[in-house]
Amino acid sequence: MTLQSFGVIGLAVMGENIALNVERNGFPIAVYNRSRDKTDKFMAERAEGRNVKAAYTLEDFVASLERPRRILIMVQAGKPVDAVIAQLRPLLDEGDIIIDGGNSWFEDTDRRTQELEPAGFRFIGMGVSGGEEGALNGPSLMPGGTESSYQYLSPIFNKIAAQVDDGPCVTYIGPGGSGHYVKMVHNGIEYGDMQLIAEAYDLLKNAAGLDHKQLHEVFAEWNTTDELNSFLIEITANIFPYIDPDTSLPLVELIVDSAGQKGTGRWTVQTALELGVSIPTITAAVNARIISSYKQERVAASKVLTGPSGKYSGSTKDFINMVRDALYCSKICSYAQGMALLSKASQTYNWNLKLGELARIWKGGCIIRAGFLNKIKKAFNEDPALPNLLLAPEFKQTILDRQTAWREVLATAAKLGIPVPAFSASLDYFDSYRRDRLPQNLTQAQRDYFGAHTYERLDKPGTFHTEWVPVTEKSK
Amino acid sequence: MTLQSFGVIGLAVMGENIALNVERNGFPIAVYNRSRDKTDKFMAERAEGRNVKAAYTLEDFVASLERPRRILIMVQAGKPVDAVIAQLRPLLDEGDIIIDGGNSWFEDTDRRTQELEPAGFRFIGMGVSGGEEGALNGPSLMPGGTESSYQYLSPIFNKIAAQVDDGPCVTYIGPGGSGHYVKMVHNGIEYGDMQLIAEAYDLLKNAAGLDHKQLHEVFAEWNTTDELNSFLIEITANIFPYIDPDTSLPLVELIVDSAGQKGTGRWTVQTALELGVSIPTITAAVNARIISSYKQERVAASKVLTGPSGKYSGSTKDFINMVRDALYCSKICSYAQGMALLSKASQTYNWNLKLGELARIWKGGCIIRAGFLNKIKKAFNEDPALPNLLLAPEFKQTILDRQTAWREVLATAAKLGIPVPAFSASLDYFDSYRRDRLPQNLTQAQRDYFGAHTYERLDKPGTFHTEWVPVTEKSK
Repeated sequence: MTLQSFGVIGLAVMGENIALNVERNGFPIAVYNRSRDKTDKFMAERAEGRNVKAAYTLEDFVASLERPRRILIMVQAGKPVDAVIAQLRPLLDEGDIIIDGGNSWFEDTDRRTQELEPAGFRFIGMGVSGGEEGALNGPSLMPGGTESSYQYLSPIFNKIAAQVDDGPCVTYIGPGGSGHYVKMVHNGIEYGDMQLIAEAYDLLKNAAGLDHKQLHEVFAEWNTTDELNSFLIEITANIFPYIDPDTSLPLVELIVDSAGQKGTGRWTVQTALELGVSIPTITAAVNARIISSYKQERVAASKVLTGPSGKYSGSTKDFINMVRDALYCSKICSYAQGMALLSKASQTYNWNLKLGELARIWKGGCIIRAGFLNKIKKAFNEDPALPNLLLAPEFKQTILDRQTAWREVLATAAKLGIPVPAFSASLDYFDSYRRDRLPQNLTQAQRDYFGAHTYERLDKPGTFHTEWVPVTEKSK
Repeated sequence: MTLQSFGVIGLAVMGENIALNVERNGFPIAVYNRSRDKTDKFMAERAEGRNVKAAYTLEDFVASLERPRRILIMVQAGKPVDAVIAQLRPLLDEGDIIIDGGNSWFEDTDRRTQELEPAGFRFIGMGVSGGEEGALNGPSLMPGGTESSYQYLSPIFNKIAAQVDDGPCVTYIGPGGSGHYVKMVHNGIEYGDMQLIAEAYDLLKNAAGLDHKQLHEVFAEWNTTDELNSFLIEITANIFPYIDPDTSLPLVELIVDSAGQKGTGRWTVQTALELGVSIPTITAAVNARIISSYKQERVAASKVLTGPSGKYSGSTKDFINMVRDALYCSKICSYAQGMALLSKASQTYNWNLKLGELARIWKGGCIIRAGFLNKIKKAFNEDPALPNLLLAPEFKQTILDRQTAWREVLATAAKLGIPVPAFSASLDYFDSYRRDRLPQNLTQAQRDYFGAHTYERLDKPGTFHTEWVPVTEKSK
């Protein structure tokens, strides 16, 4: 019996698509799914005529693979991953490689590595971005684990990943859960990008009064620019002209304005708090989804909490360009935050992440793919110790040149009553980061006043406490 | 031997002060501290002449207390609490009551309750607010646990708590970890209040150019108003005129502008994400402390990231009043968020929290004490099912009357380059909450486009998926 090169467990759409991608690139595959129906359907339809071996037991599946076995698990993150590993483990031989391709919490990946590697198995936690289409035609892959295991995978991953001008969109990320961590932050950045685009849409529609044809034109034009050319801007441009056949209205306007948040977006915010990294744009994006989910409350509140109405009074063309600048400045801040988080995580967990390489492998395949990432790659390759993307010469100059427009957009939004939480959080990030003095000296004075927390001084070393009011007044 | 009424373990300043408060109110106390020195010092100095029995072993400590024993643990949250409980437990009798008065994570309190109560002990997780001074002269107390245990404590707690016009600042909060949860959110709100005051200070100093005498006058005047009268505004007014004796400069300006965040503030944000509750003002406050801690990076960045300078060009007096209105509107939003979080936690964990009562017990003793809490108490007592504080008639009208000033302050801050993250987050919260339609319909369209996540429609039930571009274009 000829053995297959690569196995995939889990035939939901992502699993199917990666399996077909691997096979198309010349690696015979084996597949297994918990329920037989899915496997049968896959074999009868999409796998028809391909070099795919279906297995109906894990024993047959494992027996069909060449050694060291390369097994990609594409099931829901959490307990299902542990369940599959537990079933698989007794069937495997030393040196076999399990790859978890889901959006697992990075500490789970660390734990699984600790459980599997000392027993002689190899474990790779891999972020996969690009949605269904990326999985099929070329995703961005973020594999983390023991580096020596990666040699068995790179020949396949280099082929199935998206290909861009400077190579395939995959690289060895780092040890343990680092691959899943990087994917998590990628998703956090994706939340940021999507929210910034939503706010630009809101401003263009409600402050400038653009219709859907005009919205399409603006985003299509932005997609041709060096700064904003990206997958998300492209699909946004494509969404606006889509007319609902039933109502003849733009479909996007018929969609409920309520988005969920969970998993990777939320985790990005939570882990940033643990590490003490400021990511306000991404945080605002997660929060905007939460408040969007209060649909019924908002509808009720809209009837009593009145506010300003009216449009931007200046030139529409100027306003469009100002919103473009605000969007781009905010996007730079969002990426600056995401990269700073990765940098801090890398130091904290000793991952030795190469930030320029991460920007490179996001250039294709994934949801945040964009020409812009080339600039980020360049910035970190020129200065791997760059403390913040805002300080890279190109980004610095871009923001300095555009900040007046950015500020004007925010002032306009505040006065017109249009919420722009991610735009605002970005400007406040920029204005805080560039301030040698912030007002937290008052915060420290207050904490010392009511809790004797002590403070440091600018003019001399040490910690100090002050009896801010006479003791007799204070404690009678 | 006469037995003592109440025992305190842990003689750091909070433990000492609560112990003295209990004793002063007529309840003989026993104290124990891990290191003998502290106990000796306490007995020789502050406890001199008081009805205090010092114990140097836990056995003696327990033996000195009347039954059911009432033992308050005042040690650092986390493992130290578990360690003390483990040592104490073999010495206790059925029905004895352990009270944890630290800032414990509420799930730890739930776990400890589960460990202790089935074994016949009673456990109360109690939030204590008010800092050192409150602990000594009257704190706000937030005890949670089994309600039947509370009868043994209320005679003491009713006396030691701060006293306000409508009673002592203590009430039975709810089961399990609810007391610590409420204290955590109280602290999150405190973060919000402190950050909003810091932003007002920054604006008044840097946009309006007020000196420290003027800042004192403004805050002292605000402290006389119905809206802003509060402990934190009062101490802020007291901080500005404090002159450093060494330099003859205002001391606040010599304090390093870098504040820490941890524990309760961070937890409030993390738990809000878990519960899907939007608390952007509190989140911005926690984040502002994080970015303030990047002191060295900020000093370096300030030299290259230039921005606007200049002052507010209109009347200073008008600007001061506008900042006051912005502060008050933002504060309402911050409390609306905190109360909404408590409401959701109460539903999720079946705590049956009485939001009006919580506002009442915060009126005295604690750091956020303020006349304003009377209005919140009134709002929830009039409508216990109020979905959001913004909808209460008085708060609604206040914001509608003041929103023009609030918007003008934010527009000014954006243009002058002064970061106002909590003010901005508050306005964006208000403007999002009052919008029947937000732009997340676009987010949902994007998610459906790249990930087939499906969407709902406004005009008919069900979930839908669209092939946004022709299949032939999409997957070749």
